[in-house]
Amino acid sequence: MDFTTKLNEAVARVENGLRTHVPDARTRPARLHAAMRYSLEAGGKRLRPVMLLAAAGLHGTTAADPVPAAVAVECLHTYSLIHDDLPCMDNDDLRRGRPTAHRAFDEATALLAGDALLTHAFGLLAEAYADRPALAHALIRELADAAGSRRLIGGQMEDLLAEKKADATPDELEFIHLNKTAAMIEASLAMGGLVAGFEAQVLATLRQGGRHLGLAFQIIDDLLDATADTKTLGKTAGKDARSDKTTFVKLHGLETSRRLAEVQSDAAIAAFRSLPGDPSFLVALAGQLLRRDR
Amino acid sequence: MDFTTKLNEAVARVENGLRTHVPDARTRPARLHAAMRYSLEAGGKRLRPVMLLAAAGLHGTTAADPVPAAVAVECLHTYSLIHDDLPCMDNDDLRRGRPTAHRAFDEATALLAGDALLTHAFGLLAEAYADRPALAHALIRELADAAGSRRLIGGQMEDLLAEKKADATPDELEFIHLNKTAAMIEASLAMGGLVAGFEAQVLATLRQGGRHLGLAFQIIDDLLDATADTKTLGKTAGKDARSDKTTFVKLHGLETSRRLAEVQSDAAIAAFRSLPGDPSFLVALAGQLLRRDR
Repeated sequence: MDFTTKLNEAVARVENGLRTHVPDARTRPARLHAAMRYSLEAGGKRLRPVMLLAAAGLHGTTAADPVPAAVAVECLHTYSLIHDDLPCMDNDDLRRGRPTAHRAFDEATALLAGDALLTHAFGLLAEAYADRPALAHALIRELADAAGSRRLIGGQMEDLLAEKKADATPDELEFIHLNKTAAMIEASLAMGGLVAGFEAQVLATLRQGGRHLGLAFQIIDDLLDATADTKTLGKTAGKDARSDKTTFVKLHGLETSRRLAEVQSDAAIAAFRSLPGDPSFLVALAGQLLRRDR
Repeated sequence: MDFTTKLNEAVARVENGLRTHVPDARTRPARLHAAMRYSLEAGGKRLRPVMLLAAAGLHGTTAADPVPAAVAVECLHTYSLIHDDLPCMDNDDLRRGRPTAHRAFDEATALLAGDALLTHAFGLLAEAYADRPALAHALIRELADAAGSRRLIGGQMEDLLAEKKADATPDELEFIHLNKTAAMIEASLAMGGLVAGFEAQVLATLRQGGRHLGLAFQIIDDLLDATADTKTLGKTAGKDARSDKTTFVKLHGLETSRRLAEVQSDAAIAAFRSLPGDPSFLVALAGQLLRRDR
């Protein structure tokens, strides 16, 4: 099976899992559940859940089903996008090529839908792995750490503070990228490893690869914001330059940023190659992310 | 030891726990952690964590420490208040006698502080009970269910929809009260029971008592909004009547509402009296809540 077929298959497992493991849009209150599903079903690359499935599948199939964990990670990611798009944050109208949640519904509904997706991520892990409480506990611990005030939310906070001043330092930029972007990619890979039952050293390698891949991913995001158009991206392009935000591109220029992304991507691939089982899909995925155009 | 001494002791354990089990205000990013602590340290009745400690202590001390679970419940409750006070929700300036989080900081910081407290509630349960993964799992499952889209957040969503129309039905009002208010009181009591290691039947009695107490609590909240002043309440009074919101008071009048609160409170007390160990503190607490003036 070639890479694209494998990728499409993984994305289909995620999409199917999202339909199965999130409350139906008619669940009371229907408006809230419709908003949750609206944002989840907007598509997107499904990068984090696909990486989770890839890490879980290094040795083939696993005793525990990795799909609920993949869905939890996507719920967490989608909540962070909904809240990030709100008027008091980035005030964005477009996400994944469709109106953002607060545009399609209203601000209060979007706020609550984000809260509900965040809570559902933990609830789903607790429910779906109820017959393996130690695994459920380990998954929740990994996710709560990555999504918490020191990492994902901390990165969003510093990102917000950095936008208000034109001269964010390289240290601040690294904190933002490591936490706003890399934390959830690290956690997705580690959670896949937890489902597969890998030992601590393999989990550490997965996190390390995720860290490098997350940094590469964010640099490419900055590059795309500077070079691609809104239609291709499915979200508003050119925002960074208009707000004079400190990004890799602003600090280092286009060429050096591209090289830095390659260095991080290569480091991720080196980590993935040292994993047990068959890491070829993860390696190919990292390569593809470096070449992405949206 | 009399009731007031016991109550003060329980509140002191909660306050102390909040200082110990929440990141220091200087943790990076400091603005985010300062906002989390600002809202947590504003005081309040600490009703939910005190009830958790009371349920955990029915048989005296427990093998596992109930304080981290009590802190998790208060973090969850405080997040819900922060988000509820935001301009797109209730747009309130005053909470627990101080400026609300978005007034003291700004909207984005308040949004993220709420997100972070919600995430911390689950993270803390996973960390603090790491040596008892089955207990950690059960606590997280209970909390995620009570705080999720079908209960706490669902109640907030229907509350919001009800505010937009002057004629919410008694069924809608019950859904709101059962979920917006009672769910977290039920969960607090059940989580105390889980820490104490009670069997399923005792947990069910704790939830049942919590449900009745939650309904009593919300009716009294409606009564106080209609009859008390802002200074005593520490939050804006008279809001319901000004917005013509459907409440128990609007549907049933002051006298009948008071009687309904007594009926629910009596039912809670009857449930508590059937608990094992010494339920006298829980019984007294229910009695006091019925007579509260803020």
